[in-house]
Amino acid sequence: MQMTEPQGLQLKKRNEGFEIYLEGRKILAHTSKSPCLYVGSGIDKMEMYRGNFDIEDYIVERIGLREAMVKETDNGYVVEFRRSSEDRPSVSVTLTHEKERLTMKFSQTESIYNRFWLRIPAEEEERVYGCGQQMSHLNLRGKHFPLWTSEPGVGRNKATYTTWQADVHDKAGGDYYHTNYPQPTYLSTKKYFCHVETTAYADFDFRNSEFHELHIWEIPEAIIFETSDSYKGLVTQLTAYLGRQLELPEWVYDGMWLGMQGGTEKVQEKIDLALEAGIKLGAVWVQDWQGKRVTSFGRRLNWNWQWDELEYPNLDQKLKEWRQQGIHFLGYLNPYIIVDGSLYQEALKQNYLVRKQADEVYNVDFGEFDCGIVDFTNPDAFAWYKNVIKTNAIDFGLDGWMADFGEYLPTDAVLYNQQPAKLMHNAWPMLWAKANFEAVEEAGKQKEIVYFMRAGYTGSQKYCRLLWAGDQSVNWELDDGIASVIPAALSAGLSGNGLHHSDIGGYTSLHGNKRTKELLLRWLELAAFTPVMRSHEGNRPQDSFQYDGDEETLAGFARMSHVHAALAPYLKELVRVNAAEGIPVQRPLFMEYEQDDQTYDIQYQYMLGSDMLAAPVYEEGASLWKVYLPEDDWIHLWSGTSFTGGTVEVDAPIGEPPVFYRKESKYSDLFNQIRTDYLLTDKK
Amino acid sequence: MQMTEPQGLQLKKRNEGFEIYLEGRKILAHTSKSPCLYVGSGIDKMEMYRGNFDIEDYIVERIGLREAMVKETDNGYVVEFRRSSEDRPSVSVTLTHEKERLTMKFSQTESIYNRFWLRIPAEEEERVYGCGQQMSHLNLRGKHFPLWTSEPGVGRNKATYTTWQADVHDKAGGDYYHTNYPQPTYLSTKKYFCHVETTAYADFDFRNSEFHELHIWEIPEAIIFETSDSYKGLVTQLTAYLGRQLELPEWVYDGMWLGMQGGTEKVQEKIDLALEAGIKLGAVWVQDWQGKRVTSFGRRLNWNWQWDELEYPNLDQKLKEWRQQGIHFLGYLNPYIIVDGSLYQEALKQNYLVRKQADEVYNVDFGEFDCGIVDFTNPDAFAWYKNVIKTNAIDFGLDGWMADFGEYLPTDAVLYNQQPAKLMHNAWPMLWAKANFEAVEEAGKQKEIVYFMRAGYTGSQKYCRLLWAGDQSVNWELDDGIASVIPAALSAGLSGNGLHHSDIGGYTSLHGNKRTKELLLRWLELAAFTPVMRSHEGNRPQDSFQYDGDEETLAGFARMSHVHAALAPYLKELVRVNAAEGIPVQRPLFMEYEQDDQTYDIQYQYMLGSDMLAAPVYEEGASLWKVYLPEDDWIHLWSGTSFTGGTVEVDAPIGEPPVFYRKESKYSDLFNQIRTDYLLTDKK
Repeated sequence: MQMTEPQGLQLKKRNEGFEIYLEGRKILAHTSKSPCLYVGSGIDKMEMYRGNFDIEDYIVERIGLREAMVKETDNGYVVEFRRSSEDRPSVSVTLTHEKERLTMKFSQTESIYNRFWLRIPAEEEERVYGCGQQMSHLNLRGKHFPLWTSEPGVGRNKATYTTWQADVHDKAGGDYYHTNYPQPTYLSTKKYFCHVETTAYADFDFRNSEFHELHIWEIPEAIIFETSDSYKGLVTQLTAYLGRQLELPEWVYDGMWLGMQGGTEKVQEKIDLALEAGIKLGAVWVQDWQGKRVTSFGRRLNWNWQWDELEYPNLDQKLKEWRQQGIHFLGYLNPYIIVDGSLYQEALKQNYLVRKQADEVYNVDFGEFDCGIVDFTNPDAFAWYKNVIKTNAIDFGLDGWMADFGEYLPTDAVLYNQQPAKLMHNAWPMLWAKANFEAVEEAGKQKEIVYFMRAGYTGSQKYCRLLWAGDQSVNWELDDGIASVIPAALSAGLSGNGLHHSDIGGYTSLHGNKRTKELLLRWLELAAFTPVMRSHEGNRPQDSFQYDGDEETLAGFARMSHVHAALAPYLKELVRVNAAEGIPVQRPLFMEYEQDDQTYDIQYQYMLGSDMLAAPVYEEGASLWKVYLPEDDWIHLWSGTSFTGGTVEVDAPIGEPPVFYRKESKYSDLFNQIRTDYLLTDKK
Repeated sequence: MQMTEPQGLQLKKRNEGFEIYLEGRKILAHTSKSPCLYVGSGIDKMEMYRGNFDIEDYIVERIGLREAMVKETDNGYVVEFRRSSEDRPSVSVTLTHEKERLTMKFSQTESIYNRFWLRIPAEEEERVYGCGQQMSHLNLRGKHFPLWTSEPGVGRNKATYTTWQADVHDKAGGDYYHTNYPQPTYLSTKKYFCHVETTAYADFDFRNSEFHELHIWEIPEAIIFETSDSYKGLVTQLTAYLGRQLELPEWVYDGMWLGMQGGTEKVQEKIDLALEAGIKLGAVWVQDWQGKRVTSFGRRLNWNWQWDELEYPNLDQKLKEWRQQGIHFLGYLNPYIIVDGSLYQEALKQNYLVRKQADEVYNVDFGEFDCGIVDFTNPDAFAWYKNVIKTNAIDFGLDGWMADFGEYLPTDAVLYNQQPAKLMHNAWPMLWAKANFEAVEEAGKQKEIVYFMRAGYTGSQKYCRLLWAGDQSVNWELDDGIASVIPAALSAGLSGNGLHHSDIGGYTSLHGNKRTKELLLRWLELAAFTPVMRSHEGNRPQDSFQYDGDEETLAGFARMSHVHAALAPYLKELVRVNAAEGIPVQRPLFMEYEQDDQTYDIQYQYMLGSDMLAAPVYEEGASLWKVYLPEDDWIHLWSGTSFTGGTVEVDAPIGEPPVFYRKESKYSDLFNQIRTDYLLTDKK
């Protein structure tokens, strides 16, 4: 490191103010005319309808704290902020710099402010990333991002018909920022990360050319800053702080996971068909292992988490049999329990459910059926639910499950720990992840079992073994279709969650959207180049083209599942690096090519590790595809053609997604072998 | 008046604050914990696209001025507001009470605040009305109302397909509060009115149960309060302050005005047809008298305000001829001039156009053609444009015109008077009205000529002779279809503009909306019971059913035009009262039946004067109609059936809109005669 800039934490006095630098980056800039800190009070209105929130805030006051008194301490500073020198109350900020981490701690002398705005100096050309799993934008500059876990929206773009219909019928259209997994963390191209220790509603505003403004609905406990001279270094440090994912079980790499349902017999038929078609089948994912429920939305599940012996006779034996064939069995769980089920009765008796008032359980509408919410703030309830997971899922023999949901805590709920539900809402996905994590850990099965989640928050880094991108629409729309899973993976990775995958084919079929064969096959080839490859029948299987829809599709699944399995040694190494260093498996191009300014806004291409670049086709009817290659020696995976960088156009027939690898890769033999083994038949 | 409550202006000291009462109404309530006045600063973003505005405000500060020092004066009080006792700057409010009017004048010691919020104490059950011409809501309680003259929106309801399409294609969908004619004035059921002297962007928030909050993007010059013991008294006082409309020309009552276009010959044909069909024809309204222009939106006009001799050969003679037949000729004008016209060249030469920068004229996109804006802040330009009106319209022989638009001043324009365009934008409709008013006045033709406008603001009371409801969609949607013209008339009336009418059949045919025969006929019968009855071909005449669409419709027009003309003595009297006392022709029910609590939220029925109640049918396919009648002796106009009040259901075939009159009315013979003369033929 040959930095000439001043190191460590520095405070520079300025005319009527000060500036604070961390390793040469300006982190705060304050003058009495342009204060860095604003506080105030707001009265919010938060209404939930099936996981979608209407959120309004009436700002009663927003006051710039113009006067700042700075004192130096042993390892930093204390700054006392007031409106004016005579004014009470004050907000004090303690800045400590230890082990390369700057921690700002905030406290107010009187608890009267519930709104907080901190300005971080920005530069015109600066870009920022992160904020959890963002599906519309990788570079967050120019927009603001409310950070609140919720349904991500159907359509997510007010200009689309799907979004409009979803809004009108179900308040469910969403917008560019809606996500199951928000997180008050961003990375800047000034090469620092900033993380806010809060679970309150927040809104990070990156619209201003001169500052970022972090808005939080409380005076937050702390804000953390660290710097590095590389983006890999940044995520390594971030995950050192937030936690990292364990490695995935070994069996995960041995083939794709096929989503299927319909009872033991049906599943056996589908397994037979898949094997016959030559699909490299690592697992079946059977969400209705515990029963189904049909609603107007589509086929849903029976939320009383235990084996449905009627629907799945003999399953306890069958899954052993399948496992011996190398086919693992994955189920489905979530943290809500249906009012007419036995778990609900048990929870009710023991007072384990979130309450609406002191004496009334909060039953939440999940779409034509109501459920109770297990109160994870009650240690007994938490332990009980872990035990449900252990007994009903792990002991039963599941190799994993979708650990769905986590976003539906109503803000007016009454909790065991007496914290306002508004403050616990965002924490819930982490608690749900933790319940899964500890259940598996206590069963001693961390190396055998995997669960995957869509909801997340700070803490998911450690407790969520694997993310999936949630419920995309089964179409080509940028904000909610196939393309959106790429920025989702990249932003999650930059937020510390480096293992990501998506539903092959997407999920939501509503308002006329029906999954086509082409979409399914494009999603299939995209998924082959992610750590895990899993298909979904969709919410309305009848409206969605399926992997067994025709011979050609089955053959495509067979071929791509083998391509994916062939990548196993490479993927395993990437997952190991993610576990050890927090460097995500799917990475934005700029993480590998920092010097290339053009890479910083590319959000629909990604690096799979350091050696492979994927540029999935996300437009209907495309057969050629334009790809930006940073300067390097590249080999096109399917043709073997060499490239040295720039924008190139390649053939991209279905089945040969635009993928390139670095000529110098130590895995180049493996990649070459894929070309040899799996070129499209008619081109061989 | 037997009020027991304290009279005049009173200030009562309260713990850490004060309350101010005007004639017993609590007008202000201040404590240091809950101040009545907030100030701050904001940075706005206002973008115009064809008269639709995207408006965002970033509130940098919003500060409650907690400390108030009160001094008594000869005729009121001065209150000095600060953040805290030591703080600078202060905002001082001078309250003077003269001639029953409370005037609050505001000033700040340093000009640093550009945002203002004043809280007026409210009561749970209180209702409020006004805010100019509001088309979705009569009672404004429960919503907030941004006050900014603009296109009113196509659809005006985010749940409708029309709105969504208009938003997506043209940013033009609008919402419930968008209006051509906003006004920072409201009337409260506490029986006071409040009017803010400002032309800045404002937002009146009536959502809070304990206060109304008036938000203004400047420290306003003054706020006026007056009280009365009746709503009629309130509007009389309000219009004494703001001005009142003159009476309409005598000829206005002599029949309906038919909208037609297409050249002299075509107009003659249509007149012949109308007369032949028995239509009582008071005027033809010919918007393309000065030429046409076809765009993708539909048929538009050639904005270079002078007789188009090619399109209308011989018009100068024809209109004299028609006038002798009792048929008046109305044209069309607006305050914008097309870049390829001669007026533009003239204005350019004399520097009469609004500028974008010092040396660049601001050409504004009006939908596939650009126009300059005559700078009405330049007295020479104003005089020049009045002269254009006098020469090209009045001297030419028009009996009136649609004085369209007025809402399109871009906020980044540079004006002659050096005022910020953001502050002049709302004033523009008033200036445009004033230009028309003075042109007619200077020509000495106030008793002969009438012009009608959609745009308005404070001041339109005096200068705008007649309002029309603007451009409705040709459909049944509440927020933008036939029904919306009723709250439009009523809210405008309560804001001081008591003469209102609408386009028979509506105007906007876009995104699949096509005017049906039923809609046209329902609108026709509605219009018969308003002061002026005028039809419009619509923006896409081919897509709209027209009055000459079939024999039955022609007959309907004939019959209803006679009904309207038969009401002339009654309407004339109402217009006279409006001119003399400011009491609108169309009135909300509660204005006549103050004691009846149920009348206060009725927005689709109205009183036509004191003696007639109209409840127009605004649903497709209806043949029966429910009407609420306040307690009184009512006669149903068509059947002669008596009612004494309550909710009644009446037959409402097309051609017999639900209308009732008071048995005691001195016009009851006239109303009886209508029944005798104009009952539907097949019922006679």
